[in-house]
Amino acid sequence: MSWWSELARPLNEDARHAAARRQAGLTKPPGSLGRLEEIAITLAAMQGETCPTVDPVQILVFAGDHGIATSGVSAYPQSVTAQMVTNMATGGAAISALARALDAGLELIVLGTVGEVAHESLSSSVRLIDVAPSTQDFSREPAMTNAELDVCLAAGGEAVERAVTGQGCRLVIGGEMGIGNSTAAAALACALLGHPASELTGPGTGLDAAGIARKATLIERALQLHRADLNTPIEALRRVAGFEIAALAGAYLRVAQLGVPVLVDGFIATSAALAATRILPGTRDWMLFGHRSREPGHAVLLEALDAKPLLDLGLRLGEGSGAASALPLLRLACTLHREMASFAEAGVDEALP
Amino acid sequence: MSWWSELARPLNEDARHAAARRQAGLTKPPGSLGRLEEIAITLAAMQGETCPTVDPVQILVFAGDHGIATSGVSAYPQSVTAQMVTNMATGGAAISALARALDAGLELIVLGTVGEVAHESLSSSVRLIDVAPSTQDFSREPAMTNAELDVCLAAGGEAVERAVTGQGCRLVIGGEMGIGNSTAAAALACALLGHPASELTGPGTGLDAAGIARKATLIERALQLHRADLNTPIEALRRVAGFEIAALAGAYLRVAQLGVPVLVDGFIATSAALAATRILPGTRDWMLFGHRSREPGHAVLLEALDAKPLLDLGLRLGEGSGAASALPLLRLACTLHREMASFAEAGVDEALP
Repeated sequence: MSWWSELARPLNEDARHAAARRQAGLTKPPGSLGRLEEIAITLAAMQGETCPTVDPVQILVFAGDHGIATSGVSAYPQSVTAQMVTNMATGGAAISALARALDAGLELIVLGTVGEVAHESLSSSVRLIDVAPSTQDFSREPAMTNAELDVCLAAGGEAVERAVTGQGCRLVIGGEMGIGNSTAAAALACALLGHPASELTGPGTGLDAAGIARKATLIERALQLHRADLNTPIEALRRVAGFEIAALAGAYLRVAQLGVPVLVDGFIATSAALAATRILPGTRDWMLFGHRSREPGHAVLLEALDAKPLLDLGLRLGEGSGAASALPLLRLACTLHREMASFAEAGVDEALP
Repeated sequence: MSWWSELARPLNEDARHAAARRQAGLTKPPGSLGRLEEIAITLAAMQGETCPTVDPVQILVFAGDHGIATSGVSAYPQSVTAQMVTNMATGGAAISALARALDAGLELIVLGTVGEVAHESLSSSVRLIDVAPSTQDFSREPAMTNAELDVCLAAGGEAVERAVTGQGCRLVIGGEMGIGNSTAAAALACALLGHPASELTGPGTGLDAAGIARKATLIERALQLHRADLNTPIEALRRVAGFEIAALAGAYLRVAQLGVPVLVDGFIATSAALAATRILPGTRDWMLFGHRSREPGHAVLLEALDAKPLLDLGLRLGEGSGAASALPLLRLACTLHREMASFAEAGVDEALP
């Protein structure tokens, strides 16, 4: 038995009902805080407490390079993966600035990069796992071996354990960095959903229409190549995903087993989230969705997961940046739920009969 | 000449261009932070600085009662206006919890309530202006006299001056409390846009379909009554708006004159914002929009103002709560813009040719 066959924790329906009753008594027209009410009630069910909290928060960014990136599917060279890990570690990336501003922990888990992560950036917040410099080109062969996939899934699960069991974090955000990974995410999504590549392929970091068409053709060919072996989500991850996508899937599996909410980011993170829900029933219960990416395939993934993200701001950066941007809404939802007075406490008249 | 004929400040286009150049060099695909990039660039143009900031922030909540509220247009009794001001002042209302969590100032400006604001809640953060216990019922006569309107507009302008000139605030949020005020806001919007009442009338705090139909009929009759005199936005405010709506309009006028951004809240606040744009050209330039309310008429107002709000979370509470909930996004936009490294600084390769 693999570790990921351990059951996901169930939600606490008593806490959900207690939170809903609490919301109904607060000094506002019922339902008038909309999604902020829903979030507080959902978090209550996840945490088994009438008044939930999301702090402390840990952001886990998984990085890895992609064999497919040598086929011209990205606007950026492969060297950028390691350079951006360095930039994240030294504080200059979007997710670094967000983590600081949000007072959230940030750990970078490097599963393998073609370039080298600059030595001076290495610290306790960077973990080099070094599965391989990159995945294999999945348009020619499986992206990973079984052993490599196992290492990646475990790396995700262990990062969650460090955050949750080790540091007592109440919310996890997963992010990713990997030049070429919107190609791998699109292929994974196609494999899981049975959709043609054209429905899931988009510009990624900035391809033009011709580039998108080439990318879709490449994905479609790869799906044909692996067609006979894409029957399980584990095998789909191994054949067409990437190290960081597999690690994210491992993280989503482990949060569900530990019973901690996770705030899902954009297109690439959501492809990993979809894989996790197909691997282990009940995983979806622990997911909140931060934002709707401008990457067009994200809408397809969100629909498949019946997910309504909190933000829709045209972001398409990854790194966990969209989820991190939504974190203040979770905090405010908890604050309103916990701190608002009830009609009785405040001496405010209720609605007319 | 009235004070509100003083010109609005123009935006600083040099700062806008400098901010756009700065964004283009940051370590991310161009445009990949979507609206967060736009916000930083717009705030730069407002503040005349390449790297803007929105702190300190002042939230101004204007409260007043409505004569029309005795006609059964609200789910709540008129007594709730003063009770909710007390609740805001003692920290139990949504906007109180939000202001604390967001480290924003909160001032309550009470223009006139039928009930009494509890004495023990009075502090330097509550200003009693006491124009009258409520407006007149605008389905029978003008809501206000000219003198009352002047007091309300000035109260809004002066609250902004205290925040901006007095306390150095870099961003203002306007909110409101007033049982019946979605009726007044709908009537004002109809007067300004020439739309029938049915297009702007919604449930407010919680009317059912029959209640909404009655409310629309009442508004339509009032519009007929005042028809000959609704030619100017000032006269529309006087005849069919409310004390707190007029004060909000005054606040929106004054921020534009002082050159400070304002984050507009939901349906009622946006009706006042629309009035301000019709009173003084250039006022629109200083407005950002926090959220899209679930109150259906809000979409009509937002379209009239060519406004794309940041959040769409099904809120319909007022008090400034939707705008306050969007404040973290403005702060994060400024942080990312200021703190992210450039490609050159971080040694990250740029896009492939």
